[in-house]
Amino acid sequence: MMRVDLNADMGESFAAWTMGDDAALLKTVTSANIACGGHAGDPDVMAKTMTMAHANNVGIGAHPGFMDLAGFGRNRMSVPRSTLQNQIRYQVAASIGMARSVGAKVRHLKLHGALSNMASEDPVLARDLYEAALSVAPDLIVMILAQTAHQQAVEELGCEWAGEIFADRAYNDDATLVDRSIKGAVIHDPEIAGKRMVEMVKAGAIITDSGKHIPASIDTICLHGDTPTAVQIAASVRAALEDNDVTVQTFEGHR
Amino acid sequence: MMRVDLNADMGESFAAWTMGDDAALLKTVTSANIACGGHAGDPDVMAKTMTMAHANNVGIGAHPGFMDLAGFGRNRMSVPRSTLQNQIRYQVAASIGMARSVGAKVRHLKLHGALSNMASEDPVLARDLYEAALSVAPDLIVMILAQTAHQQAVEELGCEWAGEIFADRAYNDDATLVDRSIKGAVIHDPEIAGKRMVEMVKAGAIITDSGKHIPASIDTICLHGDTPTAVQIAASVRAALEDNDVTVQTFEGHR
Amino acid sequence: MMRVDLNADMGESFAAWTMGDDAALLKTVTSANIACGGHAGDPDVMAKTMTMAHANNVGIGAHPGFMDLAGFGRNRMSVPRSTLQNQIRYQVAASIGMARSVGAKVRHLKLHGALSNMASEDPVLARDLYEAALSVAPDLIVMILAQTAHQQAVEELGCEWAGEIFADRAYNDDATLVDRSIKGAVIHDPEIAGKRMVEMVKAGAIITDSGKHIPASIDTICLHGDTPTAVQIAASVRAALEDNDVTVQTFEGHR
Amino acid sequence: MMRVDLNADMGESFAAWTMGDDAALLKTVTSANIACGGHAGDPDVMAKTMTMAHANNVGIGAHPGFMDLAGFGRNRMSVPRSTLQNQIRYQVAASIGMARSVGAKVRHLKLHGALSNMASEDPVLARDLYEAALSVAPDLIVMILAQTAHQQAVEELGCEWAGEIFADRAYNDDATLVDRSIKGAVIHDPEIAGKRMVEMVKAGAIITDSGKHIPASIDTICLHGDTPTAVQIAASVRAALEDNDVTVQTFEGHR
Repeated sequence: MMRVDLNADMGESFAAWTMGDDAALLKTVTSANIACGGHAGDPDVMAKTMTMAHANNVGIGAHPGFMDLAGFGRNRMSVPRSTLQNQIRYQVAASIGMARSVGAKVRHLKLHGALSNMASEDPVLARDLYEAALSVAPDLIVMILAQTAHQQAVEELGCEWAGEIFADRAYNDDATLVDRSIKGAVIHDPEIAGKRMVEMVKAGAIITDSGKHIPASIDTICLHGDTPTAVQIAASVRAALEDNDVTVQTFEGHR
Repeated sequence: MMRVDLNADMGESFAAWTMGDDAALLKTVTSANIACGGHAGDPDVMAKTMTMAHANNVGIGAHPGFMDLAGFGRNRMSVPRSTLQNQIRYQVAASIGMARSVGAKVRHLKLHGALSNMASEDPVLARDLYEAALSVAPDLIVMILAQTAHQQAVEELGCEWAGEIFADRAYNDDATLVDRSIKGAVIHDPEIAGKRMVEMVKAGAIITDSGKHIPASIDTICLHGDTPTAVQIAASVRAALEDNDVTVQTFEGHR
Repeated sequence: MMRVDLNADMGESFAAWTMGDDAALLKTVTSANIACGGHAGDPDVMAKTMTMAHANNVGIGAHPGFMDLAGFGRNRMSVPRSTLQNQIRYQVAASIGMARSVGAKVRHLKLHGALSNMASEDPVLARDLYEAALSVAPDLIVMILAQTAHQQAVEELGCEWAGEIFADRAYNDDATLVDRSIKGAVIHDPEIAGKRMVEMVKAGAIITDSGKHIPASIDTICLHGDTPTAVQIAASVRAALEDNDVTVQTFEGHR
Repeated sequence: MMRVDLNADMGESFAAWTMGDDAALLKTVTSANIACGGHAGDPDVMAKTMTMAHANNVGIGAHPGFMDLAGFGRNRMSVPRSTLQNQIRYQVAASIGMARSVGAKVRHLKLHGALSNMASEDPVLARDLYEAALSVAPDLIVMILAQTAHQQAVEELGCEWAGEIFADRAYNDDATLVDRSIKGAVIHDPEIAGKRMVEMVKAGAIITDSGKHIPASIDTICLHGDTPTAVQIAASVRAALEDNDVTVQTFEGHR
């Protein structure tokens, strides 16, 4: 029996401002990466999103990023390493306690935005950040971009982890994402997205634009929550998987 | 044998800006109320202050307030009740996890600034805030202003608590503080402050300006950390207590 | 010939988060109250909104409030008076310079949210805030809630002003708004809103729920931009006015 | 007659936190670069600092940086170019209006921290930022690091400018600063700092560590305000200059 998890970023509303349709996505995904107040989210949004995720039996993840609301964590920043580690600790800590207060539990960690991108290119940075998170909660499962520096870091740390691929992004032959400026880099068609995911999960490999297979631990598929077609793509990917005998359920970590 | 705790607010630096001399105060106090990033403090400041407090065997407290750096938590704000509760949860949660990451533990809670003042006048507000904090960490000891609405709230909740009086403030006959605009409301002389504290601790009562004794649970004495004479007043109070056979040590909570 | 202005709050998006449909509203209104980065808005949003308003020949106003993004300026705050004045100066100054940089001009001022509410009850506060704004730009026209403390303040200051009524709120006999908790306090039906505005403009008076006429300087009608039916109500009010020979155009200030 | 200006960064306190001794420095410098609320400063601090500078006949400059209080503008950030331009416009605009409200005037612009460093290496960035500032106030004099990309930018723009050197930093032979990690890079001795400045101003050239003379427009000398010896170095440099017949007065811009 094949199985895979579906994850999406959530809880990215802030104060009077709403982003995405979390309630709808929570009907489809099995893991939610919930912002921690660094790049998005606030105490109310966290409490509400965690409560909804818990009620839907969706696994809860801390989703920390650069503490830069104005840039939504999308700007690369030269923050000193130890400060960055403390910022991760702070956000993870806030998540864990907020979850506890609503009767839920944070089970995984996923980095956000520019910080995730930087860590996917730099195994020392990735390791420093994951170590910081684990210093707050040693049993967190780290959700990583498969076949990037993220993976090197979790393997070195020996912690539990789960590998992720993107539902809506094309891959280069070195397992990096095709640049957004190139045609076809982003998949907008829900049906094509679903079909690709079935192929990759069944192959146990990232399939690149050229058709190359890169064996990878595909434990979870990332669905983007803030695009106009987010909810449809999510539903389509889930339906395609289930129609092809892939069970969609919350991932287990492994080492 | 009589005993009492000495507490002070700490970790109120922010980013490039320093406030107070925490390292010096930590030589004298036995409990530290450490800001949580709401009215002051940031992840670096929290980690550093908690590490220092732990190394000095000083009890660590979460010190949440209004999330208003620009006003240092001193402005009263009409934040909706459930938002306020989530903001308390968030700050307490962050404190607890930061402490864990440096090998320490948060053992008490003390409200900051305008939020504490408002809660000292409103037992329902006090109770709502303490309940929110306890939903994150049920074993927190709540540090309260003795004989105010704070005390009513912890008694109703049945949680562990510790009563506090001020080293440097004069009291009215109803146990409220003499308004700062009135002469003598704030005690600046370290020797007088020390003498008063010995009297009150020995009497087991708040002694008001008129000489009235209001029996109170005096578990801890608040020393202000951000005044020019903070370190001297702290040292003087501690010396006076010890010279009069009062043991200065971290408080125990009670119900 | 009767004439009136239609105004709405705009530029209340922030960073990655969108609020309201400013482009649509700008087709209907004749004055835009543009947030200044205090309760909402940011430099990008300000530049974009001002550029659009200018292109649509819509009068631009600075719309400062409490500097509290997390509360969207809706929380009352006990900020010291001189600080509040400097915060108004700062926001007005930023607006004026941003407008200049896109080739436009700020012509009016309107207070936002809780700060406006507080000033509508306190003529000294209103006066202090308007004075602060005018210290940056003496020729600003102050948009005020007609028949409130706002009006007393501008009359005392002798500055140019314009009186405003609400399209979607019922009035008490003392010209205050019917509390939102009372049925009928908020008018959701675009047609009724339009009809009421025609009546009040023609009467030159606020017409209360009991039918009482309170003569008032009705220079502009406030349309709320952040409700689901905002654009329809705006269009309906404008159509009703024009169908009844009331010219809709940007207001002139008066003393 | 030789003349030179002395400038220092000021107004970098924030909310309850103080930085530097602006009142003391204002007795020595002739130009003040005043933070705009982006990396430091707030409306109160700006108003107070501008009022003091004006009372001391010290020229006022807007000193914008990355909008990152947590990093004090010292972190490099990959903010999109047009956003960065709007952030500069916003900060410059706020400065100009705040100055007007206290009866003063902003006459120059100087970039802060990481943003200044990035612009000193990238003439297109420098030009984009200066253009943004000038779109708000076309008559600003741009204070630039002499012989860097800053200078190329102002020469291309054809705007008024003034060249700056550092009192306390050693120079490489390509006019860049000796890296702080190298011994001797920062001059802490007030007497040596004074002597060097006299030599450079008299030579009309940056004198590098190797003794090379790089002819430069030395209109102003930067004194750092946030170091422990800031006030002494400032006084020493000023005394050395005056003892050697160099008049210390506010700079004039040139093209």
